[in-house]
Amino acid sequence: MRVLGIDPGLRTLGWGVIEAEGGRLAHLANGHCRSGEGGLPERLLSLHAQLTDVVARWAPDCAAVEQTFVNKDAAGTLKLGQARGIALLVPAQAGLAVDEYAPNQVKKTVVGVGHAAKEQIQHMVRMQLPGVEIAGPDAADALAVAICHAHHANGRRLHALAGAAR
Amino acid sequence: MRVLGIDPGLRTLGWGVIEAEGGRLAHLANGHCRSGEGGLPERLLSLHAQLTDVVARWAPDCAAVEQTFVNKDAAGTLKLGQARGIALLVPAQAGLAVDEYAPNQVKKTVVGVGHAAKEQIQHMVRMQLPGVEIAGPDAADALAVAICHAHHANGRRLHALAGAAR
Repeated sequence: MRVLGIDPGLRTLGWGVIEAEGGRLAHLANGHCRSGEGGLPERLLSLHAQLTDVVARWAPDCAAVEQTFVNKDAAGTLKLGQARGIALLVPAQAGLAVDEYAPNQVKKTVVGVGHAAKEQIQHMVRMQLPGVEIAGPDAADALAVAICHAHHANGRRLHALAGAAR
Repeated sequence: MRVLGIDPGLRTLGWGVIEAEGGRLAHLANGHCRSGEGGLPERLLSLHAQLTDVVARWAPDCAAVEQTFVNKDAAGTLKLGQARGIALLVPAQAGLAVDEYAPNQVKKTVVGVGHAAKEQIQHMVRMQLPGVEIAGPDAADALAVAICHAHHANGRRLHALAGAAR
């Protein structure tokens, strides 16, 4: 199963693709889509085009998107929401199932605790994807979301197998 | 100049198309895109498909989107942002210039004051677009945004003409 993880943001959208076979994970690619300096419609158009290109190039089987909002700032939350709209739309347009994970769910799965520093997440991403070169913090978060999804999907698979064997 | 006005929302996205020639306005069409009951990615996909269809059918020359956020509720603002992302993306994908107007700008232009009730906006939309049948409150807001854009664009045109004549 090939998983695309996305950490949405209007300025920088992080993405990461991993291969998950049972409990084993392997890194395929990660990077950023940057929306540039144009007006908002152009920036969203640019993110859409770049992310569509990522999906076409890496042909994931499913996608997972981090579920965040900026609590203190309505304007910031609106901006993030606009980028998230694109992040959810693009894999759905490719016919992929898209799951969402809250940040503390991602941290709990990848690091073991719900409150973890950025450095700790990057460290655990490197541990679980040997040899990975991480493009930056948003790409690390995107890989963490992909890892989170792979673990949850594997858990559901094992649960279903255990149920069938009973 | 044919103007597409959009009042974005995740559940219901209002749209309206008007024809503006100088100061004269005429109604062409208005309606709603409804995102249905699916998961968030499917709902955004549905809005994208319906709005793309509106743009293809009515071939506007430009688009105007209402610029709102839900101040009290981060989750609501995020939802709205996601729908706004689609509302801005679709006309940009069709190569249209997309302008944004704050709600009080729209009200000031259409009603004359920055704080106007929904009924007052609908009344002024009906006054300025004789014979219009409004599909609902979101479609009325979308028509108001389109009218606002037409007036501002006409103002800029007259200003440029006056400058050229000087």
